[in-house]
Amino acid sequence: MAQEKSKQVRQITDMEADFAQWFTDVCRKAELIDYSSIKGMFILRPYGYAIWENFQRILDEKFKQTGHENVYLPMLIPESLLQKEKDHVEGFAPECAWVTYGGSEELEERYCIRPTSETLFCEHYAHIIQSHRDLPKLYNQWCSVIRWEKTSRPFLRHREFLWQEGHTMHATAQEAVEETQRMFNIYADFCENYLAMPVVKGRKTDKEKFAGAEATYTVECMMHDKKALQAGTSHYFGDGFAKAFGITFAGKDNQPHHPFQTSWGVSTRLIGGLIMTHGDNNGLVLPPRIAPIQVVVIPVAQHKDGVLEANRAVVDTLRAAGLRVKLDESDNSPGWKFAEYEMKGVPLRLELGPKDMEKNQCVLVRRDNGEKVFVSLDGIEQTVADMLDRVQQGLYDKAKRNLEENTYPCATLEEVREKMAARGGFAKAMWCGELACELRMKEEAGVSSRCIPLEQERLGEVCACCGKPAQHMVYWGVSY
Amino acid sequence: MAQEKSKQVRQITDMEADFAQWFTDVCRKAELIDYSSIKGMFILRPYGYAIWENFQRILDEKFKQTGHENVYLPMLIPESLLQKEKDHVEGFAPECAWVTYGGSEELEERYCIRPTSETLFCEHYAHIIQSHRDLPKLYNQWCSVIRWEKTSRPFLRHREFLWQEGHTMHATAQEAVEETQRMFNIYADFCENYLAMPVVKGRKTDKEKFAGAEATYTVECMMHDKKALQAGTSHYFGDGFAKAFGITFAGKDNQPHHPFQTSWGVSTRLIGGLIMTHGDNNGLVLPPRIAPIQVVVIPVAQHKDGVLEANRAVVDTLRAAGLRVKLDESDNSPGWKFAEYEMKGVPLRLELGPKDMEKNQCVLVRRDNGEKVFVSLDGIEQTVADMLDRVQQGLYDKAKRNLEENTYPCATLEEVREKMAARGGFAKAMWCGELACELRMKEEAGVSSRCIPLEQERLGEVCACCGKPAQHMVYWGVSY
Repeated sequence: MAQEKSKQVRQITDMEADFAQWFTDVCRKAELIDYSSIKGMFILRPYGYAIWENFQRILDEKFKQTGHENVYLPMLIPESLLQKEKDHVEGFAPECAWVTYGGSEELEERYCIRPTSETLFCEHYAHIIQSHRDLPKLYNQWCSVIRWEKTSRPFLRHREFLWQEGHTMHATAQEAVEETQRMFNIYADFCENYLAMPVVKGRKTDKEKFAGAEATYTVECMMHDKKALQAGTSHYFGDGFAKAFGITFAGKDNQPHHPFQTSWGVSTRLIGGLIMTHGDNNGLVLPPRIAPIQVVVIPVAQHKDGVLEANRAVVDTLRAAGLRVKLDESDNSPGWKFAEYEMKGVPLRLELGPKDMEKNQCVLVRRDNGEKVFVSLDGIEQTVADMLDRVQQGLYDKAKRNLEENTYPCATLEEVREKMAARGGFAKAMWCGELACELRMKEEAGVSSRCIPLEQERLGEVCACCGKPAQHMVYWGVSY
Repeated sequence: MAQEKSKQVRQITDMEADFAQWFTDVCRKAELIDYSSIKGMFILRPYGYAIWENFQRILDEKFKQTGHENVYLPMLIPESLLQKEKDHVEGFAPECAWVTYGGSEELEERYCIRPTSETLFCEHYAHIIQSHRDLPKLYNQWCSVIRWEKTSRPFLRHREFLWQEGHTMHATAQEAVEETQRMFNIYADFCENYLAMPVVKGRKTDKEKFAGAEATYTVECMMHDKKALQAGTSHYFGDGFAKAFGITFAGKDNQPHHPFQTSWGVSTRLIGGLIMTHGDNNGLVLPPRIAPIQVVVIPVAQHKDGVLEANRAVVDTLRAAGLRVKLDESDNSPGWKFAEYEMKGVPLRLELGPKDMEKNQCVLVRRDNGEKVFVSLDGIEQTVADMLDRVQQGLYDKAKRNLEENTYPCATLEEVREKMAARGGFAKAMWCGELACELRMKEEAGVSSRCIPLEQERLGEVCACCGKPAQHMVYWGVSY
């Protein structure tokens, strides 16, 4: 029976054969997710939610270190409130879920479940901001939001997803712009140093920016299949919402002013990115810094004298060193266990049996490259910690190579079209800044602008599309 | 201006004059809460949310230590799913908020926003439970729920509130009953040892139990105004839901069985209880173990040489000892600051000015009883920690006296009615177990049954209502 389940666990589609199916298989077989009875609404199972809890722990600490405070605002938005900012309501109203009845009574005004909370924060800020002494307000909210989309995929497109949304108000435009960049840099740091996902940092074009924002900064990542994933965004709003919502403060000059606003967020979508960056045909591969289990300890011949005790002693040592360790003492076979924790992407496996005990050693096996080494039990906590660091770095390096090897310059739309069809990835091309050319790129080359990178290169003088003078170098790609 | 704001901060209604208004004033002036544009939906401001974060941190650790795992299930429940368990839908359907449109399309079936998630958990458990090896399942969820009630009050009755809901499945009834009691004891421990709220532990009568449950265990607290607050509940469901939802597992006997279920929860309502237990006419009073700020440090004559530096050094020392400390260096007057942090219920105030520095001392002022002492700066972290322990114990003792002094035996309905009208509190009276008598108590004495305490006393042989043989001693009271 263990054998049978072992085989069953292993049955996932090869990523080279069908990447989308591979992805769905991993989400299911690694027990990250389950389906619910409502299309597009997923269940985050304990292992999937534990990854999100690690995201929360790390990001929340960074937010608090930079002076942010958490709050909780209602999940419902009156339709009239959503309509106060024109661009914003146009962007979100088509995908709102609407509440029309409270108990048996029809509501006088319908309420949408928040797709995002700018309008609610603005209404609250209008209450509580009076003076320049009340600024800045640096609020963040952990919650779920609903966007009623037609299609859905685990993590990447949920009708309901978990996220954090920061909403801040500042006395000056400059402070707000700095905040936008600060948070955008926190996201980039989080992706690179915790998720081992190298990023391209840039600004969205007007077409791709957030509904109602003046500027949207984005952190773009490349997945294993060469498609792009937007990992996190940070928006600068100017004082547009503040005007629409009548938010003013008395400045040091005793005159009324409108404050300047930002918002920024990352969501469970990023877990999808994590899977598609590092996973392989044996399942999930998790970077140690974010893995719910960093080391799984598997006793070999555990019925023999002293084996369980020796394994428990190692587990205690590793835990005392602050590592997240699971000991699997179940009566499943070692082979079943190996497959199970490979599927779950546990970065390091430690095996310890009677023969190892004789030699005062154990076996360590890396999930990312299968490397197997025998190491002494003396100083095992340092050996393991060092190896986890190497796994973390190895995953980053591999993803960085994928990004670099699949990012290439193109001089013309035609070249973008051909290379994108042949190899995917990111095409770097000059752009005049006109919407018409951006739309043509989409129509004729099948790509969207991913971002205008902060690090610009002057690849040429003219737009790859229309031949008019170029303004920016843009990354183009196919996105999730 | 500081003077003016100081007065404004102090302006709250006396609790003796109007307890309800005092409560609302504290919620507003301590900046725990703000109103939103939807009736009954409140905003948890940073200070209020920080209290909830402390609840979460402490409880989540206790849940994980007892083997529970967190998950996240959708916020929407199809009407057909809610209807699967008859008592449950009758209990909750009248106060559901209903989603009828997704974007511009009317839904084929309407969905309610979860008022509680038993039905969703059962649907999920039906997917993932096959064998006795899959049991127990010990899941918990942190989320918000909606109950569309007619009336509302800050913390006590929100149309949307934050809570945690545990939902567990077990192979045997005995295991499930043990789980119900384990979690109920965790709530009692949390109330008594962290919130300094003494509790009465008991079982709800059939009339008062949770919709669909076989038994509901409750932790009841007495507020400063002698009314009762249900602090947390833990429910035993038997296998009723499992049958309704077709959840079966193959037992060790290879036969199909229905698992046995529990659920348990505490919500932001308990913050209301915390306020009404410890607060006074100067505002909030928080027990140190749950206070977002345990010590506020206020420099005296802070413009003088070395004062800020000396204050910062003390803050560093206290923080290094693991205390939650705020240093208020703002240019508001000390008087303004004293009033501000009294209103916010910070357990301990530390003042340090030039004269203190000369004597290597500082001033400590307790929020709970106003006691003011001069203490040496040597070993200040231990002095402060000890004093915080005394504040914690002092608050508990005071609340315990309130509970004990206002709990009294009654022999007849008439006696309950008279004493309750005169002094409130908990009337202890014998009960035959019949619904009719419970209803009569409500109608004629204005009280509901709070619980059948686990610690029973035999006050007499007959029901205080009907004179027939008594089955239980019941606590009666007026509840929030």
